Amino acid sequence: MFEHVRIVMVDTSHPGNIGAAARAMKNMGLSRLYLVNPKIFPDKRAIIRAAGADEILQKATVTHSLEEAIADCSLVCGTSARTRTLPWPLLTPRQMAERLLPEKQEIALVFGRESRGLSNEELSLCHFHVHIPTEESFSSLNLGAAIQVLCYEMRMAALGEITYETRDSPLSTVSELAGLQTHLAETLRNLGFLNTDHPMKLLHRLRRLFNKAQLEKNEVNILRGILSSVDKHLK
Amino acid sequence: MFEHVRIVMVDTSHPGNIGAAARAMKNMGLSRLYLVNPKIFPDKRAIIRAAGADEILQKATVTHSLEEAIADCSLVCGTSARTRTLPWPLLTPRQMAERLLPEKQEIALVFGRESRGLSNEELSLCHFHVHIPTEESFSSLNLGAAIQVLCYEMRMAALGEITYETRDSPLSTVSELAGLQTHLAETLRNLGFLNTDHPMKLLHRLRRLFNKAQLEKNEVNILRGILSSVDKHLK
Repeated sequence: MFEHVRIVMVDTSHPGNIGAAARAMKNMGLSRLYLVNPKIFPDKRAIIRAAGADEILQKATVTHSLEEAIADCSLVCGTSARTRTLPWPLLTPRQMAERLLPEKQEIALVFGRESRGLSNEELSLCHFHVHIPTEESFSSLNLGAAIQVLCYEMRMAALGEITYETRDSPLSTVSELAGLQTHLAETLRNLGFLNTDHPMKLLHRLRRLFNKAQLEKNEVNILRGILSSVDKHLK
Repeated sequence: MFEHVRIVMVDTSHPGNIGAAARAMKNMGLSRLYLVNPKIFPDKRAIIRAAGADEILQKATVTHSLEEAIADCSLVCGTSARTRTLPWPLLTPRQMAERLLPEKQEIALVFGRESRGLSNEELSLCHFHVHIPTEESFSSLNLGAAIQVLCYEMRMAALGEITYETRDSPLSTVSELAGLQTHLAETLRNLGFLNTDHPMKLLHRLRRLFNKAQLEKNEVNILRGILSSVDKHLK
């Protein structure tokens, strides 16, 4: 899905974060990792945190400079803490993903050091900057978590509108609901439960409940089954 | 911002993940953490990974059951790997955040074990389930990363449409751009650069470039300054 997108990590100190990046990438369908001067790589801690995304670590490209890692890219996005003095086009991760989605050329998403992100010089190599909205007083995300968020937004943009199918059976129709409602009213009446001052008000509330629940056909059948078994006892 | 939202972690094995959760929560403006039977807590590894979000760990509520952790909640969302046999309302993290945004009552976002998530029994305590879209063949996110994604979506929903101000100076007007274009044409003519077969075509391409770049006022001034200094040499 994202063969033309690479994740570039600059001067990463902790190998665990490289493993976390690989895991997040594989979860979201990305596979190409570039490491600019990683402090410790390869390392067992990276493999442990990758939790099965080892192949991304094995195929990772190690370079000596950011320029080298992004030389063949047409679009480069750098993550930024938004406190830079240099004004630059700045996007949220979501805006970034929407902007990148139609691009078919090589794209790099660049992440800086755990301690202090990307330098101004590195940021000036980017076409635009991406900022993950945070609390101002606590703005530094874990590196793996930041990579997770950007990869997640790439995937969400690529998937478009998602609707999960979570129904067992189709929704009930208006006439099936009306049948339930009639049955319910009769049973309640036979139970002596509708001998209140406001029987219609009670029935209305129950109708509202059924509508809110968006009853499925088999749920209507279950409820009518319960009513029928009550009916039998009332005969 | 999210005083009524709690993160509930069930049977967490690794204290590092509890710290990662606290950090992700504080980054995104959440503060209330509930821990159901954490294997190791408190622990130094949690504090290290929290990276400054210690207060969330200190104020965390430890309970012996999920029921206890969510007893006073009106809405409970459980994270699910989507392979359950029980059909249940299933949302993406984004749909979840939109659904939760208007709610003012107590809300719980529940996360399961590192190894196998929430049990079907635990999931049946939830009003709806949330699934982070993943590759089917590699669907298990790091626990801290999953918490990061849901907290990020909560924050994005709360912030609404974000536009960063990244311009130094206002955009140039059409007449300022026309002035630049006239100046450029004259300088290029004096340079002998427009003695091609298609001088107008070249000028059109440059105009297109300026429009694409959405030149700001001070950028127009810089370019005209360069042209003026060329002009001086031509005199």
